[in-house]
Amino acid sequence: MEDLKPRPANSSPLTPIGFLERAATIYADSPSIIYGNTTYTWSDTHRRCLQLASSLSSIGIQRGHVVSVISPNTPPMYELHFAVPMTGAILNTINTRLDARTISILLCHGESKLIFVDHAFCNLIHNALDLFPPEIYRPMLVLIADDAAAEESSSSVLIEGNFVDSYEGMIRKGDSEFQWIRPASEWDPIVLNYTSGTTSSPKGVVHCHRGSFIVTLDMLLEWGVPKQSVYLWTLPMFHANGWSFSWGMAAVGGTNICIRKFDAVLVYSLIRRHHVTHLCGAPVVLNMLTNSPDIRPLDWPVKILTAGAPVPATILFRIESLGFDVTHGYGLTETGGTVVCCSWKAEWDQLPAVERARLKSRQGVRTVATPAVDVVDLETGESVARDGVSMGEIVLRVGSLMLGYFKDLEATAKSMTEDGWFLTGDVGVMHPDGYLEIKDRSKDVIISGGENLSSVEVESVLYANPSVNEAAVVARPHEFWGETPCAFVSLREGLTQQRTEEEIIEYCRGKLPRFMAPKTVVFMTELPKTSTGKIQKYLLREMAMSMGPTKRSSKKN
Amino acid sequence: MEDLKPRPANSSPLTPIGFLERAATIYADSPSIIYGNTTYTWSDTHRRCLQLASSLSSIGIQRGHVVSVISPNTPPMYELHFAVPMTGAILNTINTRLDARTISILLCHGESKLIFVDHAFCNLIHNALDLFPPEIYRPMLVLIADDAAAEESSSSVLIEGNFVDSYEGMIRKGDSEFQWIRPASEWDPIVLNYTSGTTSSPKGVVHCHRGSFIVTLDMLLEWGVPKQSVYLWTLPMFHANGWSFSWGMAAVGGTNICIRKFDAVLVYSLIRRHHVTHLCGAPVVLNMLTNSPDIRPLDWPVKILTAGAPVPATILFRIESLGFDVTHGYGLTETGGTVVCCSWKAEWDQLPAVERARLKSRQGVRTVATPAVDVVDLETGESVARDGVSMGEIVLRVGSLMLGYFKDLEATAKSMTEDGWFLTGDVGVMHPDGYLEIKDRSKDVIISGGENLSSVEVESVLYANPSVNEAAVVARPHEFWGETPCAFVSLREGLTQQRTEEEIIEYCRGKLPRFMAPKTVVFMTELPKTSTGKIQKYLLREMAMSMGPTKRSSKKN
Repeated sequence: MEDLKPRPANSSPLTPIGFLERAATIYADSPSIIYGNTTYTWSDTHRRCLQLASSLSSIGIQRGHVVSVISPNTPPMYELHFAVPMTGAILNTINTRLDARTISILLCHGESKLIFVDHAFCNLIHNALDLFPPEIYRPMLVLIADDAAAEESSSSVLIEGNFVDSYEGMIRKGDSEFQWIRPASEWDPIVLNYTSGTTSSPKGVVHCHRGSFIVTLDMLLEWGVPKQSVYLWTLPMFHANGWSFSWGMAAVGGTNICIRKFDAVLVYSLIRRHHVTHLCGAPVVLNMLTNSPDIRPLDWPVKILTAGAPVPATILFRIESLGFDVTHGYGLTETGGTVVCCSWKAEWDQLPAVERARLKSRQGVRTVATPAVDVVDLETGESVARDGVSMGEIVLRVGSLMLGYFKDLEATAKSMTEDGWFLTGDVGVMHPDGYLEIKDRSKDVIISGGENLSSVEVESVLYANPSVNEAAVVARPHEFWGETPCAFVSLREGLTQQRTEEEIIEYCRGKLPRFMAPKTVVFMTELPKTSTGKIQKYLLREMAMSMGPTKRSSKKN
Repeated sequence: MEDLKPRPANSSPLTPIGFLERAATIYADSPSIIYGNTTYTWSDTHRRCLQLASSLSSIGIQRGHVVSVISPNTPPMYELHFAVPMTGAILNTINTRLDARTISILLCHGESKLIFVDHAFCNLIHNALDLFPPEIYRPMLVLIADDAAAEESSSSVLIEGNFVDSYEGMIRKGDSEFQWIRPASEWDPIVLNYTSGTTSSPKGVVHCHRGSFIVTLDMLLEWGVPKQSVYLWTLPMFHANGWSFSWGMAAVGGTNICIRKFDAVLVYSLIRRHHVTHLCGAPVVLNMLTNSPDIRPLDWPVKILTAGAPVPATILFRIESLGFDVTHGYGLTETGGTVVCCSWKAEWDQLPAVERARLKSRQGVRTVATPAVDVVDLETGESVARDGVSMGEIVLRVGSLMLGYFKDLEATAKSMTEDGWFLTGDVGVMHPDGYLEIKDRSKDVIISGGENLSSVEVESVLYANPSVNEAAVVARPHEFWGETPCAFVSLREGLTQQRTEEEIIEYCRGKLPRFMAPKTVVFMTELPKTSTGKIQKYLLREMAMSMGPTKRSSKKN
C-alpha cells in the first residue's frame, strides 16, 4: 500500500472557486443575484467575474497579492469572492463600521495592493489613506459606483478620487475567456479576514482554498440548503465571507438577494417579493425581526441560521412564533463558519415551545466536517464532566480551521496545540446528551467571591423579562467580592412606565442564585455593537470599570 | 503568507469514520438499521462497531491489514464499514456473485488477514480457500450467522467451519470504550474494492479516508439527501461501498433498511412499511421495478439514484410514470461514487415527459467536488466540439479519485496523467449545454466500415421497442465491414406473439442510420449480468465472436 500516494490526479486542490463555472453550466439562465431592479443570471455572474479577474491580472494583480474591498452586500461584493481568487490573489473584506484609523492600520498590515471602494465609503477610505505612514505603498483604488449610469457621467469623480478605474469599467475591459489561476496547492490562501469585534487588536485570519471548500459543503449540508434556494443577504459578507454562503450559493445555484443595509421592514417585504427561503444573522437580527412594525405571519417557513453570539431562549421563542425556522450554530472567524450546530431531533418537535427554545439555545454538536469538540478544564486540560454545569474552555478539531494569523506566528501557535486542538477562548459546558452550551468568552466570566459566574446566564434571565429589549452583563470591581455582575439594559419601546434598577435586580433575584443577580443596572437607549451585531462588551467593561468599585452594601449580600 | 502552513490543528485528517460517533450523539435513539424484525439505534450501532473493532484489535488486526467480508446487505455488512477502519485496517468487500476461483485470486492478491463470512457463503469461501497455493497465509474466518439464536446453538458449526469466532461473539467480547485508531494521515487507505465487472482481470481499487469523506459529502449534497432520510439498500454495499451511502447514512442520521436480495415485490412492500425516501440501483433495478406484479402508484415520490450503466430514456420514462423521482449519475469504482450527475433544471419541469426522459438519460455535469470533466479526442487529446455528436474519451479531475490500483503501479500510472486527469476509458459526447452523455466504454465502440458506432445508441432504440425487455449490442466480425452490430435481446413477458430477428432489425432501420442497425439479433431469456446489474458485455462479445464473421449479404447493405 505504501506505493499508493497522492498524485496530481487524485489530489486535485479543493477550492470553492470552481463552483461558479459549474453554476453557469447548470443554472445558466437562472437568477444569481437580485439587487433592487437589477437581476443577473449565473451565466452573467460567471462572465463578469472572469472579465474582472482578467482586468485585475492585466493591471498587475497576481498570486499572493491582497485585494481589499469595502462595500455593503452588493453584487460587486458577491462577485469579488470569485473574481479576486481567480487571479490567485487573496480577498480582504473590510468591515464597513470600522473607523479610518483602524482601517488604515489593517490596510498597512495586510499590504493591500488594491481596494474596491463602494461610493458610500470614499471619504472613509481617503481618510484612512491619509493616515498611512509616508513610506508605505498606497493601494490602487477602484470605485464601485453602485449605479452604472451615474458612473458613466462621472469620470471627473474617478479623477478627483484618485481611482484607477471604476468597477464596471474594469468588467467592460476584461476578457470573458480569461483562464483563471487555479491554486497551486489547496493550502494557498484565499481570504484574509480581520476579526472585527470584541477584542481591541485586530488579527488577520487567513483561510486557504481547502478550508473554504470544506466549510462551504459542511454548512450547506448542516443547514440542509437545497438547490436553487433563495438567500437574503442580511448577514454582512465581510463577516467570515458570509459564513461561506458567498461560495455556497454558487454550489447550489441559489439566488442571492442583495441589500445595502439591514432593515426589518425591507426584509419582510423582500421575503414576500422574492419568496426568500434562507437568511442568516446574529441574534440581534432576530431581535430586530421580532420588533418590526411590519410583522405578519410568514406564508412559508423561512429558515434562519443564527450564530456569532449566544442566542437567548426568549428571542428564539419569539422569532419561531412568527413562523421562522431557526438553526442555531457556533463558530468563529478562525473556523470559517459555524462548526458546531444545534442539530434538531425529530423527537423534540413534541415538546412545548418554551422547552424547544431552551434546547435550541444551546450551541449543539459538531458538524460532519468537524472531527471533535470538547470542553476542557482551564487548569488541568481534562474534559469536564458532561453535567451541563462544569465549565471549561471549548476546544475544537476543525476541518476548516484557518491557516493562521497573518504576520503573527506567536498568536497562531498559541491558538493551536501540537496535538491538533484549536483553543477558542470561549467557555462552556457539556450537557449529558453531548450538546455544548456556551457560557461565556473566557474573559467575560465574572468571578464573584471565588465563584465563577456566567454573564450569559444572567443575560438570559434579563431577556426573559418582558420589559427588556437587550441586555449585557459584565464584571464591575467590588471592594469585598472582587467582582460583581453589572447589567447594561435597553428597554423595549412603548413601555407604559419606566423600570427602576431595583425592579430589575429584584426580578433577577427571583430567578437566580443571589450572588449571580446584578448589583448594578445601567439603562441605555441602545447597547454598543459591532458591525456584526455583537454587543461590544469591552466597551461596557470599560464603563463598568470607570464607575469604580461598588461599595460593600450595608445590607447582607 | 509563506509562514502559514498546515499544522496538526488545521489539517485534521478528513475521514468518514467520525460520522458514526456524531450520529450516536444526535440520533442516539433513532433507528440506524432495520432488518426484518430487528431494529438498531445509532447508539447501538456505535457501541457495536466499537466492540467489534476492539475484538478485531485484540486478535491482531492492525493498521494497514486487509479485512474482507462476503455478505449481502445485512447489518454486519453495514457495521463493518466503520468497525474495520476503526482498527486502522482496510475493508475489502467481496462481490457475492463471483466464483470460488476468482475469490481465491483476489483474497491472495489482497493478502486478506481475516474474512467475515455470511452463512450463505461458507461453502463458497471454503472452496476459494481450498484453491489457495499451499505457501500462502490463510485468513482467519468469522461466521456471520445472521440469526443470533441459531448461532448460540451451533458452536459445532464454528468448529467444523474453522471459524475463529462468530460475528456476535466478537461483538459480545469487545470493549465499547475502545479508542478507535484515527488515520495517521487522510491519505491512509480505508477500502480495497476489486472492480467486479466488465473486464476480465480484476483490479484492486484503493481509496483513502480523504477521498471517502469527500465523495460522501458530495453525493449527499448532489442528491439532496435530508437528515433522517430512510434509505433502502437495493444497491449492494460491495459495489463501491454502496456509492458511499454506507458512510452517508451516518452523516445524516438516516435509517438503513437492509435486505439480503433485491426483489421488486419486497421493495414495494418495504417502501410502504418504512416510508422509504431514497434508494439506489443500476438501470436494471429500475427495469425490474417497472416490471413488478405489485405496481401501484407511490404515495410519496421515492428518490432513486441510478448509475453504473447508461440508462435508456424509455426506462426513465416508465419509472418516473410510477412516481419515482430519478437522479441519473455517472461514476466508476475508481471515483468512489458518482462524480457526474444529470443536475435537473427547474425549467425542464415544463417539458413533455418523453423530452424530460431524454434530457435525464444524459449523464450530466460534474458534482461540486469534481473540479473538471472533459471529452477529449482519442488521437489528439484536444477537447471535442460541444456538439453532442463528436465522440471522445471522458476524462475527469476528481476530488475523490482512488489512490490507485493495489500492486499495479503500471495500471495506476496509465490511468492518471501527470497534469491531473483521470482517464475513464469511457467514450462520450459533450452537448452544447455542457452536459455529458456516455456513448460507450471505449472497448464497446463498434467500428463498422470505418464509422465509429455507439452500441449504447443502438440499445436505446431497442429499449424503445415495446416488446423488448433488455438489450445489449456488441461487435460481431464482418467479412467486409470489419465489424457490425450484433444485438442480444430478451423480450418482455406476456407477449401475445414471438418477435423475429427480421422484425427487430426492421424496427431499428426505421430509427437509425442503416449502418447502425444490428445485422444479427440473438434472443435470450435473460442477459448475463454482474452482481451490480451491469450486463456482461464481454461474455456477449465472446458469444458474438464465436458465431464467426457475418457473411457479406447478397443484398445491398
